[in-house]
Amino acid sequence: MNAPHPPFQPRDPGYEARVRESFGRQNAMNHIGARLRAVGPGWTVVELPHREELTQQKGFLHGGIIGMIADNACGYAAYSLMPASASPLTVEYKINILAPGRGHTYVAEGVVLRSGRTLSVARAEVYAESASGRVHVASMQQTVLMLADTPDTPE
Amino acid sequence: MNAPHPPFQPRDPGYEARVRESFGRQNAMNHIGARLRAVGPGWTVVELPHREELTQQKGFLHGGIIGMIADNACGYAAYSLMPASASPLTVEYKINILAPGRGHTYVAEGVVLRSGRTLSVARAEVYAESASGRVHVASMQQTVLMLADTPDTPE
Amino acid sequence: MNAPHPPFQPRDPGYEARVRESFGRQNAMNHIGARLRAVGPGWTVVELPHREELTQQKGFLHGGIIGMIADNACGYAAYSLMPASASPLTVEYKINILAPGRGHTYVAEGVVLRSGRTLSVARAEVYAESASGRVHVASMQQTVLMLADTPDTPE
Amino acid sequence: MNAPHPPFQPRDPGYEARVRESFGRQNAMNHIGARLRAVGPGWTVVELPHREELTQQKGFLHGGIIGMIADNACGYAAYSLMPASASPLTVEYKINILAPGRGHTYVAEGVVLRSGRTLSVARAEVYAESASGRVHVASMQQTVLMLADTPDTPE
Repeated sequence: MNAPHPPFQPRDPGYEARVRESFGRQNAMNHIGARLRAVGPGWTVVELPHREELTQQKGFLHGGIIGMIADNACGYAAYSLMPASASPLTVEYKINILAPGRGHTYVAEGVVLRSGRTLSVARAEVYAESASGRVHVASMQQTVLMLADTPDTPE
Repeated sequence: MNAPHPPFQPRDPGYEARVRESFGRQNAMNHIGARLRAVGPGWTVVELPHREELTQQKGFLHGGIIGMIADNACGYAAYSLMPASASPLTVEYKINILAPGRGHTYVAEGVVLRSGRTLSVARAEVYAESASGRVHVASMQQTVLMLADTPDTPE
Repeated sequence: MNAPHPPFQPRDPGYEARVRESFGRQNAMNHIGARLRAVGPGWTVVELPHREELTQQKGFLHGGIIGMIADNACGYAAYSLMPASASPLTVEYKINILAPGRGHTYVAEGVVLRSGRTLSVARAEVYAESASGRVHVASMQQTVLMLADTPDTPE
Repeated sequence: MNAPHPPFQPRDPGYEARVRESFGRQNAMNHIGARLRAVGPGWTVVELPHREELTQQKGFLHGGIIGMIADNACGYAAYSLMPASASPLTVEYKINILAPGRGHTYVAEGVVLRSGRTLSVARAEVYAESASGRVHVASMQQTVLMLADTPDTPE
């Protein structure tokens, strides 16, 4: 994947370790088997291998699971641009399911549209990868709130 | 809970068994421990007991998990009004997170706003229940496509 | 119309005059002929008489016009609960069009779901009123940012 | 502007005249002064010169007007790929306002993400152009329903 435009300058040079550490503390991502494949200033790539236990009634990846990895791809893209003293809070998101989720791996690519003092807006595209290629399965648009001077850890 | 208005007439008198059977085939719901507590014509109640393995980095219920149960509450509310020969497909949804998810149980209540020939629109409210009461944690608005003459089972 | 639940306490007892004055300064509302019919703590009713100049290609009210009055109904519902020193900023909204807009009058009813220190969430329902009754034509969910200590007037 | 990827094949070679004619019948677009600057297979550019009568209470372009031109940019991008016998219906849209709308001209660029038999998904970016350059003011994601064998004219 090419690094997404536009080129953002991270406010915290140690953003990668910070994002990876926070992602690693998400039990829910671990429970479904998702991992952070890559992160840059204002973008992320989250990947999820297919598992039978994540399907809906027709055997495709559950739409809510697609939403989960897109949600994280957006949120951590926004978090990568925050100062080290802040933490992110998902305000809302909207997702369109474009095609059924069937593949051996699902990839959610998040990218920041706007990184503000209080609010950030990000998008994610989710793709299903299989032997026959890569299919675009979902598109998300998300709003993230930056909590200034708030540690990204349990209270 | 009171049955939601408006009162819809189900097109399939056997809708409850059909909805429960389809919900039961969702591996993803089983994987997170969610179950269908109640279903009526045009409405559902989905419940999820808290589990440590479903949390985000601060120890609250992951926003994507909140989205999953709200997604299902909406989709099955719409499905309850479809004829037995049809199956539902989530087109898109939008969710606002109103408060952190902390409770012993989470409850998503779905209700249909419009049930059309091709498209239905539903809403869900998610609540966190704890010893100190019930907190409104999220609101979803969703669009569902009805696939006519399409079985709701694996191809 | 009944006053919507939940009952909010306004932080500014003079909220009604403040909301009406701000609404009155919206040239765009005046240009389409919309007016604020009623406002209470956390809710509003905006009305728009039908005009041929507001239609889309099939002769119905343009979906964007439906969005405009729903947007205002949400935004001013949120603004009614803000302190007098603050001003509102629309962060985002999502709207489902449920039925074609045809009537002699359109009514958008906004109500606050959550009124926070920084962010508020509101909903609006839009109805078309005609000789044959009232039809539900759209549902919106919106996020509003409160700008503290920022006058709601041109810079 | 570069033509957006992906390259779609129009099903109706006469799509441009058809889109322009339909846009021209939208009284609401005429009322606010918007026009279709360009259209290709799966994409559009709608432009709107600034007018004082389209502002909100702070003197910026009203968010609902930003929504109107983005709505049209998405809808006609989807319509450009439909067969001549069909007509489009907006199902829903979600828009994030990224910056205040102030400029001499506003430009909404719509592009199709997915063009299906029944449903299409499109996005639009809105920019404000002024002497000091071009600012990204909004991002929309929209779902459009194709009404097969339905003329795009008043009933």
